[in-house]
Amino acid sequence: MEAKANKIAKPLIRIILGSKSDIKIGEAIQGQLTEFLIPFDFHISSAHRNPERTKELAMNAERDGIKIIIAAAGMAAHLPGVIASYTTLPVIGVPLSGSALNGQDSLLAIVQMPTGIPVATVAIDGGKNAAILAAEILALTNSRINHTIKEYRHTLNQ
Amino acid sequence: MEAKANKIAKPLIRIILGSKSDIKIGEAIQGQLTEFLIPFDFHISSAHRNPERTKELAMNAERDGIKIIIAAAGMAAHLPGVIASYTTLPVIGVPLSGSALNGQDSLLAIVQMPTGIPVATVAIDGGKNAAILAAEILALTNSRINHTIKEYRHTLNQ
Amino acid sequence: MEAKANKIAKPLIRIILGSKSDIKIGEAIQGQLTEFLIPFDFHISSAHRNPERTKELAMNAERDGIKIIIAAAGMAAHLPGVIASYTTLPVIGVPLSGSALNGQDSLLAIVQMPTGIPVATVAIDGGKNAAILAAEILALTNSRINHTIKEYRHTLNQ
Amino acid sequence: MEAKANKIAKPLIRIILGSKSDIKIGEAIQGQLTEFLIPFDFHISSAHRNPERTKELAMNAERDGIKIIIAAAGMAAHLPGVIASYTTLPVIGVPLSGSALNGQDSLLAIVQMPTGIPVATVAIDGGKNAAILAAEILALTNSRINHTIKEYRHTLNQ
Amino acid sequence: MEAKANKIAKPLIRIILGSKSDIKIGEAIQGQLTEFLIPFDFHISSAHRNPERTKELAMNAERDGIKIIIAAAGMAAHLPGVIASYTTLPVIGVPLSGSALNGQDSLLAIVQMPTGIPVATVAIDGGKNAAILAAEILALTNSRINHTIKEYRHTLNQ
Amino acid sequence: MEAKANKIAKPLIRIILGSKSDIKIGEAIQGQLTEFLIPFDFHISSAHRNPERTKELAMNAERDGIKIIIAAAGMAAHLPGVIASYTTLPVIGVPLSGSALNGQDSLLAIVQMPTGIPVATVAIDGGKNAAILAAEILALTNSRINHTIKEYRHTLNQ
Amino acid sequence: MEAKANKIAKPLIRIILGSKSDIKIGEAIQGQLTEFLIPFDFHISSAHRNPERTKELAMNAERDGIKIIIAAAGMAAHLPGVIASYTTLPVIGVPLSGSALNGQDSLLAIVQMPTGIPVATVAIDGGKNAAILAAEILALTNSRINHTIKEYRHTLNQ
Amino acid sequence: MEAKANKIAKPLIRIILGSKSDIKIGEAIQGQLTEFLIPFDFHISSAHRNPERTKELAMNAERDGIKIIIAAAGMAAHLPGVIASYTTLPVIGVPLSGSALNGQDSLLAIVQMPTGIPVATVAIDGGKNAAILAAEILALTNSRINHTIKEYRHTLNQ
Repeated sequence: MEAKANKIAKPLIRIILGSKSDIKIGEAIQGQLTEFLIPFDFHISSAHRNPERTKELAMNAERDGIKIIIAAAGMAAHLPGVIASYTTLPVIGVPLSGSALNGQDSLLAIVQMPTGIPVATVAIDGGKNAAILAAEILALTNSRINHTIKEYRHTLNQ
Repeated sequence: MEAKANKIAKPLIRIILGSKSDIKIGEAIQGQLTEFLIPFDFHISSAHRNPERTKELAMNAERDGIKIIIAAAGMAAHLPGVIASYTTLPVIGVPLSGSALNGQDSLLAIVQMPTGIPVATVAIDGGKNAAILAAEILALTNSRINHTIKEYRHTLNQ
Repeated sequence: MEAKANKIAKPLIRIILGSKSDIKIGEAIQGQLTEFLIPFDFHISSAHRNPERTKELAMNAERDGIKIIIAAAGMAAHLPGVIASYTTLPVIGVPLSGSALNGQDSLLAIVQMPTGIPVATVAIDGGKNAAILAAEILALTNSRINHTIKEYRHTLNQ
Repeated sequence: MEAKANKIAKPLIRIILGSKSDIKIGEAIQGQLTEFLIPFDFHISSAHRNPERTKELAMNAERDGIKIIIAAAGMAAHLPGVIASYTTLPVIGVPLSGSALNGQDSLLAIVQMPTGIPVATVAIDGGKNAAILAAEILALTNSRINHTIKEYRHTLNQ
Repeated sequence: MEAKANKIAKPLIRIILGSKSDIKIGEAIQGQLTEFLIPFDFHISSAHRNPERTKELAMNAERDGIKIIIAAAGMAAHLPGVIASYTTLPVIGVPLSGSALNGQDSLLAIVQMPTGIPVATVAIDGGKNAAILAAEILALTNSRINHTIKEYRHTLNQ
Repeated sequence: MEAKANKIAKPLIRIILGSKSDIKIGEAIQGQLTEFLIPFDFHISSAHRNPERTKELAMNAERDGIKIIIAAAGMAAHLPGVIASYTTLPVIGVPLSGSALNGQDSLLAIVQMPTGIPVATVAIDGGKNAAILAAEILALTNSRINHTIKEYRHTLNQ
Repeated sequence: MEAKANKIAKPLIRIILGSKSDIKIGEAIQGQLTEFLIPFDFHISSAHRNPERTKELAMNAERDGIKIIIAAAGMAAHLPGVIASYTTLPVIGVPLSGSALNGQDSLLAIVQMPTGIPVATVAIDGGKNAAILAAEILALTNSRINHTIKEYRHTLNQ
Repeated sequence: MEAKANKIAKPLIRIILGSKSDIKIGEAIQGQLTEFLIPFDFHISSAHRNPERTKELAMNAERDGIKIIIAAAGMAAHLPGVIASYTTLPVIGVPLSGSALNGQDSLLAIVQMPTGIPVATVAIDGGKNAAILAAEILALTNSRINHTIKEYRHTLNQ
C-alpha cells in the first residue's frame, strides 16, 4: 500500500484505489494522464480498511497542490464519497465491475450521493475517462493541457 | 442534529441516522428498543456532511459502553460502512427507500461491503428488525433481554 | 424554448435542459448557483428535437466564456453526451427520474459513456449537486468561489 | 473508420456501427442483407467521437437514396437516437452487450427515446433481426424483397 | 372488444391493444395518426385470451391493405411478437407500464425477440412514437406523409 | 424439428422447446421424467417461427391424452404463454438463461402472464423441477407416481 | 390468524397467506375459486413467525384431502417454498408487490427454487391466476371443473 | 451431508450450507473462524430438501451452546430465514452467486425478511465477512476474541 509519485512535476491529480486488486484500472488512469503529461501521485487506500489514511489523503490534497482526486473502487464503493466528504476539491469516482453484480453495486454506491457532497461519476471501469475528465477540468486554466485535450479529441475524430 | 439519550440506563445501542428526513425510521428503531427496555442513544450524523462527528460517534462507542451501532441511510448509503470502518463493534445497517431507486441503491451500498469490514444488513426500511437483531445479540449474555426476545417471538407465533 | 441570462456577470456555467417539463430541476440548479453567486445562462434544448441548437450551445460555449456545462435529461438521456461530443469543456450530467423506469434509464444513458468522451454524472435528480460540483471546479482557480464552497461545506457540517 | 459499399446496386440501407470493436454485429447485419440481396453501405462512426461525420451520414442518407438506417452501439448507446434526430428516415437501433452491464445500458439508451424521435429497437445483439425488419419495411413497396422475406419466413416454419 | 374504423380512407395502420384497460395508449396512437391524416383501424384483442382473433387480425392484415401493425401490451406482453409470427408486415411494439414492474417486464417481453421474427420496439408507454415511426415508414413511398412527417419534425425543432 | 416419442406407454407429458439450441434443458426434463417412468412426447417448435405447429401441439394435446405441457424457451419467451392460450391443460414454463440478460428476460416473459391464462413458472433453467412439478400433479390421481414422487422426496432428505 | 372453511364441500384447495396485510390477494383467490365452485380452506400463517403452524398446514394437507396449496407472500417470500418442503402436493406461489422493491424480491424468492422442490409460480399479485391454475389441475380428473374451466376460457375469448 | 466438528473447544458458531456445491464458501467461513481460533461445527442441510434436519439444527443450537448461526445459500435462498424462524440466536446470512442471476435472487431472498425475524445479511459470497461479523458479536463478551478482532483490524490498516 505504498505510494508512487510521478517525478515529472508537482502532482496535480491524486489517484486512489480501494484495493490492490484494482491495479489494472489504476494503470489505465495513470497511462492516460502520462500520455497527457499531467503529473499525478498514486495511492492504494481502502475507505474501510484504511479510513484514517484515506481521510488524510483527502484532507491534505489541497495543501499538497492537488487539484482533482480520482478514486476507483468496487462493490459497496464508498471510497469516492468518503474522500469527497473530507475535501472540496472535485472528486471523480470510477465504479469497478469485479463483483458478482458486475458493477451495478459500485455504480449506485458512487453516483447516488446525497445533496451537498457530489462525486463526478464516470462509466463502470471507465478509468481512462476519469483521466480525460480531469484533463478537461485542468484545461480550463492550463493552456498546455487545453491544447493537449483538444489534440486528443481531434485524434478521436479521425 | 442533536442527540437524545434514553434515560432509563446507560445506553447499550447507538442509533445513527444519515439525515433528519429519515426520522420516521429512527422512531421505528427507538420504539422497538423501548418496547424491549433496551437503553440507547440517538444521533443524526451524515457520513458525508459530518464525517468527523460520524467518526467520533463510531470511535467512542465502545468507550461509551455501547455494544451495537444501528445506522440507517438512503441513496449511496455509506453511513453503516463508514461507521464499521472506525469500530469493531457489530454494526447493523438499515437501507432506506426514499430515493428514485426505492432503496435498490442503499441496499447495495450497505450490504456489498468488502472483505474485512462487515455490516449486518436488514431489509429496506427494516428499522424494527434492526432493533430485534440488536436484541438477539444482547440476549446472548443478558438473560433479561433473552427472556424478552423469547417472549416477543412467542407473541409472533400466536 | 427561450434562454434566460443571469445578469450579475458574464455567465460561467451553461445550464441546458432536455425538455420544458424538467423545469423544476432547472430551478434547483439555478437556485444553488445563485446562492453561490455564480453567473450562468440557461437553455432548453433537446438533443433529439433540437440537435442543431444543442450542437451550437455546446460548440459556442467556450467562445462565450462558459467554463462548465450542466445538462439534465430523462429517459434515453443523450443530452449530456451529445453536448460532450461537441466541446472539451467539462460536462456535468443530471439523470432525471420522470419515466416509467424512475431514472434507471437516464442514469445508464448518461454515465456509461464510451472511452474518450466523459460526462461527470451526479445522482438521479441531483440538480443541486451538479451546481456544487461546478462550483468546486471553478473554485480551483477562483478564490471567491473557493471561499464560498468552503463556507457552504462548513454549514453542512453543523 | 472507412466505409465499404455493397456494389450490386445503389444502397437502400445504411449500416452504422459506433465502434470498430462492434464489427461482428456489423457482419451479422451485412450477412443477412446480402442473403436478401438488399444493397447497403456500411460505416463506422461514433456518435461521440465523430459527431459531425455521424450527423452527415444521417442528414445525407435520404439524398443518397437510403431508405432505412441501421445503427448498432453499446454502453450509453446514443448513436441510433442521434441519427434519428437528423433524419426522418426510419432508424433501427441494435443495442450491444459488450459492457459490464451486458447490454442493459445500451437497450435503455436506445429504446427509451422521448416523444417525437422514435428508434425502432430490436433485441440486444439482434443484428440479424435488424436486417430482417429493414427487409420487411422495404417489402411494403418492393415485390422482389416481399417475395424474399416471405420465402425466408417459410424456411423458418420448416 | 369491438373495432373502430377510421372512415377517411382505407386503413394503412392496424392498431391492436392487448386489453381494454390500455385504452389510453390506444388514444395516444390514434390521436397522432389522426393528426398525420393516416387512416387506421383499431382492435382490442389479447394474444392470450383471444388467440384466434389475434391471429386473424395479423394474417389478414396484408390482404386488408394494412402496411404496418402497432401492438401495445403490458406484463408478459406477447401480443406484438405473436402478431409478428403471423405476418411479414412490420410490427411496432409498445410496452406498457401498468404492472408491478412498471414495464420492465413488457419491455423485455417485446424487444428480446428471437432471430427471424423482429418487433420494432419503442419506449415504455411510447404510443405517440409508435405512430410517428409508422408514419416514417409510410413516408418512404407516400410523398404526402413524407411532407407531413417533415413538417412535424420541423415543429419539434422550434 | 422432429418429435421423439417415449415408447413405454401413451405419453402423459408433452415437452416443447422453443429452439434446437435449448436441447440440453430438454434432456434434463426428459431425464427426470424417465427416472420417474412417466411417458412423454417431445417437440421443438418455436412460438414465433412455427406458430401453426405450436398451436396444434397445444390444441391437440388434450385429445392426444396429454395431461401437462412443459414448455421451455429463452429471451422474449412467449412459448409457454402461447401454448397456454390454446389449451386449458396446465402449462409449466421453464425460462432459459442463454441470452445477454441471463434469463431475466425469459423469466418475466413467462411468469408475468395476464389474468385468465396462467403459466406455472419454475426457476431459470429449472428443467428438472418442471418434470418434478408435473409428477406432483400426476401423483394427485396416479398412485404409482404418487409413490415414486414420495420416494424421490425421501432420497432428497437423506 | 384464524381459518375460514368454505362449507359447500370438503376443501380441495388450501390457501395460505403470509400475513394479514395480504388479505386482498386472499380475497381474489377465494373469489375466483368460489366462482368455479371449488371448495377451499383458508389460513394466515407466516413461514417465519409461525413455522410450526405452517409446517403442519403443509404436512397435513394431503391427509385433509387437499389437492393443491396456494401460498401468497411478499418480500423474502419463503412461504410457498417452505410449504413445498413439507409436502409433495403441487404448491402454487403468488409473489406480492407490497414492498419497496414492488415484488422483484418476492418473485425471485418464490420462483428460483433449487432442484427437487418446485413451486409453480404465477405473476406478481396474480391471485386469480393461481386459482385458475389450480382449477386446470383439478380439471384433469374432475369433469365438472373441466367443463367450468373451459366455459371460463370461452368467456375470455368473447 | 455429514457434520464436521472443530475439536479445539465446544463450538460457538454453527455453519450451515444449503448444498454440497457451496462447499467453497463453507471453507472460507471455516478458514476465517479457524484463524480467529473460534470453535464451530459445520453442516450441510437444505431448507427445502432437509426441512426437519434444518429445523433441528436451528432449534437445538442454543441448547448445544451455539451463540451464532451462519447460513449460506443460493437462488431462492430460504435457509437463513428458515433457521431464524426456529431460534432467537443471531443468524448471519450469506447470499451465494452460483445462479443465472448471479446472486441477485439469493440476496433479496435473504435480506428482505419480514418484521419480527431478522437475518444479518452480508455481501454476496461474503463468507469471510460472515465469520468476522460473528467474531465481532462474540467479542462483546469474550476478551480473547475482542483482542483477536482488534489485531485483525489492525493488520487491515497496514
